[in-house]
This record gives sequence, structure tokens and C-alpha cells, in this order.
Amino acid sequence: MADGSHPHAGDPVFDLHLAGKMEIRSTAPLTSREDLSLAYTPGVARVCEAIAADPALSQIYTWVPNTVAVVTDGTAVLGLGDIGPSAAMPVMEGKAVLFKQFGGVDGIPICLDTTDVDEIIETVVRLAPSFGGINLEDISAPRCFEIEDRLKALLDIPVFHDDQHGTAVVVLAALTNSLRLTGRNPESTRVVISGAGAAGVAVAKILLEAGIKDLAVTDRKGVIHSGRDDLTPVKRALAVITADQTGRTGSLADVLTGADVYIGVSGGTVPEEDVARMADEAIVFGLANPMPEVLPEVARRHARVVATGRSDFPNQINNVLAFPGIFRGAFDVRATAITEGMKLAAATALAELVGDDLSADLVIPSPFDPRVGPAVAAAVSAAARRDGVART
Amino acid sequence: MADGSHPHAGDPVFDLHLAGKMEIRSTAPLTSREDLSLAYTPGVARVCEAIAADPALSQIYTWVPNTVAVVTDGTAVLGLGDIGPSAAMPVMEGKAVLFKQFGGVDGIPICLDTTDVDEIIETVVRLAPSFGGINLEDISAPRCFEIEDRLKALLDIPVFHDDQHGTAVVVLAALTNSLRLTGRNPESTRVVISGAGAAGVAVAKILLEAGIKDLAVTDRKGVIHSGRDDLTPVKRALAVITADQTGRTGSLADVLTGADVYIGVSGGTVPEEDVARMADEAIVFGLANPMPEVLPEVARRHARVVATGRSDFPNQINNVLAFPGIFRGAFDVRATAITEGMKLAAATALAELVGDDLSADLVIPSPFDPRVGPAVAAAVSAAARRDGVART
Repeated sequence: MADGSHPHAGDPVFDLHLAGKMEIRSTAPLTSREDLSLAYTPGVARVCEAIAADPALSQIYTWVPNTVAVVTDGTAVLGLGDIGPSAAMPVMEGKAVLFKQFGGVDGIPICLDTTDVDEIIETVVRLAPSFGGINLEDISAPRCFEIEDRLKALLDIPVFHDDQHGTAVVVLAALTNSLRLTGRNPESTRVVISGAGAAGVAVAKILLEAGIKDLAVTDRKGVIHSGRDDLTPVKRALAVITADQTGRTGSLADVLTGADVYIGVSGGTVPEEDVARMADEAIVFGLANPMPEVLPEVARRHARVVATGRSDFPNQINNVLAFPGIFRGAFDVRATAITEGMKLAAATALAELVGDDLSADLVIPSPFDPRVGPAVAAAVSAAARRDGVART
Repeated sequence: MADGSHPHAGDPVFDLHLAGKMEIRSTAPLTSREDLSLAYTPGVARVCEAIAADPALSQIYTWVPNTVAVVTDGTAVLGLGDIGPSAAMPVMEGKAVLFKQFGGVDGIPICLDTTDVDEIIETVVRLAPSFGGINLEDISAPRCFEIEDRLKALLDIPVFHDDQHGTAVVVLAALTNSLRLTGRNPESTRVVISGAGAAGVAVAKILLEAGIKDLAVTDRKGVIHSGRDDLTPVKRALAVITADQTGRTGSLADVLTGADVYIGVSGGTVPEEDVARMADEAIVFGLANPMPEVLPEVARRHARVVATGRSDFPNQINNVLAFPGIFRGAFDVRATAITEGMKLAAATALAELVGDDLSADLVIPSPFDPRVGPAVAAAVSAAARRDGVART
């Protein structure tokens, strides 16, 4: 490679990834003996002693309070599945640089050589003094639920599984604006979520918190309800709070008939005839990447609002709208956790940014709208104070 | 702190440490949808797939091969002792930015919330896919020896305990030039090392490898030899290869009488009368920080060459002369380990940089000599190839 070439030279994606996408930079000058004596020995010893005497000073004199570990075990990377920790690194680097670009947060990719739940938890707990927060990423369901729940209980810094909550926040923001556009209120809106993995479960929960009453979640065997005898513990709990509330059963096609909203987080597909049987002014979010469950040009024949996860269609539901601002807002008040209230506040802030520009092709802001990060951060900081998890 | 003040405002050391000393920087552009589609989804998926199919590609398309985890448990930080992982962070950040400044290596501080040997080892093994090398730092003896040995056996990336080997390399470089200046050869030079912690053990071993034959190491109870019944396993092994070879016993004062070289890595003190009883043209390295075992103005009355760890005296023996170039050289050839040959090569390269400028006040280059990092790296890369640990 001395000639600058590499195995995929000329491919813009691989050219950009040569040597990775990030680096460390010193924020202190290091060009003289005097600099070295301040930043390193002997000066640094006084900072260490001060922190040893008053641990709270580590929040002021280290980079820790602005850092987030982007932690994965490589088991559920994008739509690629269990490709292992090394192959997951490009996604974690990408996440880290998005944290910096859109939230001013220093993300550090941590790809773990274990898929054991207990080992992942104990490893993250041991790493915790090094980081201001933990962003779990691309860890397969249902392990991701237990890992997040136990880490939240063990640590007094924010722990956030982005595949769940980042997605949930942005979906709620887009849905809020879609309901406004189509003149619906949450209480009387019928929602179907296809997919009961990390994203599906989290989207269901946040929609219930936001006032949706009629909600059915489907997996490959149809609606998840308590009459089924093949449910995992996670799905059993989900059934109780979703379809059981309305008594809905049957297939995805059955439950889509007359539904107001379809949210696909499944990686499957939805035939056009099923979309056609939804209510008038239907709302269709096909979030599978890179191929949405139903293509926008097809969905638009039958739906008023169509959103995808892709940047080449209108209404891109992209987690980058949420996670940088959420951690920025949590860090700005040294929050000990990310609460449901902080997530709902993030969704509301995102939805409100659209304002009077609201249209069927604009229910969610662009990731490059410079107001996004600051607006989400401010809303999250305020919610942290309301919820009593802010330390400043 | 909204007014920019902080508890130690106005103190240059604390002012410099405000918010820490480092940050993450993206090396890829992220200002358009097109950028995002290359660096993140959908483009990044192809890089992940390529690495999953050919793991060696992670060395080309991620930042991993240029990163080193700077790992501590906070048990032996500078001369401060066991101050814990959070209070150790300023030193680890300092190390990380020195890695970048002097070696172009991306260092990531990892402060672990455990002091258990097995837990530290298993944690680092689980982290290994995220890093190109492991720099162990400020872990107390004798645990540091076992941790390094076991990690070297378990991992196929460089593992290097800087408090041992960084110090050893720079001491050997300075000693090599001091022997040249005073017309000695290693075989007939009598050396005394005071201190049998991490640095003392490593310095002893590298001096033996470099041809020193008459070497005694002392602890608080005097010369470490097999006739003593109070030795730890590490000291027992050390006795066999050092004082037992010549039959030396007694106190530090006894063994200093007539000695050619004193190397203090103890944090103790040496009275002037002991230095006065050394051989003519004596060589005295008092490396304790911030107070050398004997002050240079005192030592100079009796010795030809005097070195310390401090930047405000001539001949600063500072690890920063070694570790950035050693990892740079190891990474440049994707070395699987850092061998004894690579350390000796680093010391030789450092010593040779002084060249014709050699004098009693210049036995080791300045850390700010821009030739240092590249010269060490080149020597280390070449030695890695000779030793068969280079992958490119």
C-alpha cells in the first residue's frame, strides 16, 4: 500500500474509510517544556490529587463528562446481523463522528469480544470511570433489553440503547407531525407496528406514553397477543400493553385493514394491497434499510404521509436527529440517567422544529438543519431538571 | 461555572485542564447527505461486509490499527500511589495526547473500576478488537508483571507496560552514552539500581540484555540476593540474575562504594557521602519525581554524569522519548508484539541521536528534538522485521 492504493481503491465508500474516520486531538498545547510540565508531569499530579480529594472535580478537569462509549458486541449490525466486533467497527466510528458533528460529544467506539450478557455488563461497569455515558449499539434482541436495564440500575451515568430509543424518539416526532397534518388525535388513532425487535418494542412503548391507545405489534406470525403460546417473555409483556388492550388478533394484513398508521421496523415487506386497505389519509413509515417495507412511490398511491430511513426520499427518519442532542442535553446538566420524560421532550422538540413548514413531504426536520442538535439538547436538559436527574 | 470560572481558576495547571486535554475529531467530511451516505448508512454497510468476509481489512478501513488503549487501574499513579481510576484520568489523557503529538498514535484513556488481576486481564481481552495495541500504565507492582505477561500471551497485538519498558529504554539510551563519554564498556561496569518496583525490574533486565554483568538491585532492606528470606517471587527471580552473579550483599551504602553507576527508581534518598564513595567519573541517575534521590547540584560534586526525570535540569530521562516512537514503529509494520529486540533497538536509536554533541550535560536527546519519534519508530520497525513479528 506504499503507493497509496488499497484493495477497494476508487470506490468512494472505501476511499473515505481508508485508515478509518476519526482521530484523537489534543486540546492543550504541547510544544514546549513548559507546556509539558503543565499537561503532564509535574503539573498533572496536582490535578490528580485534587480529584482524589474531591471526585466531583473529575467532571471539571477531565474529558470524561463529555465522552460516550459507543458499545457493541457486533451481533445486530445494521441489517447485516451478527458480523462480530471487528466488522462492526466502521458503524461505531460513524456513530462516534456523528456524536461529535451533531452534538459536540466525544464518542469512543468500543467493540467487545464477547456476546455473553453478564460479561458485557461487567465489562461496561468496569469501564464506567472512563466515560460520561454509555450508548449501546447494534446488540441483538432480546439480550439488548436485559443489558440496558441492568446497566441502568448499576450505573449513575446515562445508558441509552440507540437502536431502541433513538428510533423511538424520531418516530414519535414524525408521527406527532403526521397526526397534526391529517387532523388526528393520538387517542383515536389506530397504529400497527411490524417488527418486535429492539426498535419495535421501544417504538411501541413511547407511542403508548405519548397517548396512543389502539396499538398492535406484529411479528412473522401476526399480531402479538396473549392468546399465542409461542411468545418470548419480552413479547408476552408487549402483548399485554398493546393488542390485548383492544383484543386485536390475526395477521398483519388483517390488522392493517382500516389502520391509520403503519410503522415498519421489521426488514420484511408489505404488499401494496394491504396498504390500500388502510384508512383514508393513511400514514406509512417503512423504516427498513436499505429497502423500505414498501417503496415510497407505491405507498404514496394510498397514503397521505410516507417516511423511510433513507436520505434519498423525503421524511428521513434517522436516529442522528436524536442521539447527539439527547446526550448533549444530558451532559449539559450532568444527568445521571436518560428518563422517559427526556425522550418525550426530545421528540416534541424535534416535531416542533418543523413548525409552519409542515407538509406531507416534511413531517421531520433534516439532519442538517442546524437547529436540531441545540433544540433537542435544550429540551432534554429541561426535562432532566423536571425529572430530578440533573446534577447541575 | 457559567461565567467561565472553576474551583482552581487562575492556576495555570488547572486552567489548562478545564474540560480535559483531548477530543475526538472526524477525519471524514460530514456536511452533506452525500457525505453521510458514505460515512454512515447505507455506504458503511459495505465496509462492514467486506471486513466480515476478510477480517484483515479492519487494518485498512478502520482507525483500530493506529489506536492504543492507555489502560490503568489507578493503583500506582506517578508518585501518588493508589488514587483510583477517576483521579488517574488526567495522567492517562496526558499520555494519550503525548502519543499523538510525538508518535501520531491515537491514544484512548481507559481507567478501570477494578484492581483484580483476573478482571483486568479479561476486561482488556474483551476490549482488544477495538484497539491496535495496549499500553499498561501506573498499575502497581507486582500485579503489573503478571498482567502484562498474561496479556502478551493472550493477545496478538502489542502489549507494553510503559512504567517498566519505557523507563528501561530511556535509561539504557542515557547509560549507553554515559559509558561512551566516560570510556567504559558494559562488561566491566558496576551498576547499582535502587528500587525493585516496575521500573527497577525492567531496567535491570534491559541492562543485562545490553551486556552489563555486575548489577545489584536494592530495596529498603539492602541488596536483593538469594541469601535473604524476605523476598517476593519477583525479587527472588531478580536476585538470581543480578547480585547472585557477583555475590554482592549488604546495604545500599555498602554496594555503592566503588560502583560506577547509580540508578535511582525508588523514591528514596541517597546521602551525599554515599555518592562520594562511588568510583571516579561516576554516573548518577536520580529518577524519582518530583524529588530526585540526590539533587543534581549535590551529585555533580562527585559524579561526571548526572541525569534526572525533571525538565528543569539537563539530561531528562523521560518516557516520552520512547513510547510514542515504539508504538509508531510497531504499528507501521503491524507488529504482533513488542520484543526485547525492539526495545533495545529503540534505546540504541535514541542514544545515537546525540552523536557528536555528546557531553556530560547531553547524554540523551530532548523530547522536543523532532528526530526522536521517527528515529525510534524506524529502528523499532526494523527490529520487528528481524524478530519475525512484523505483519507487513
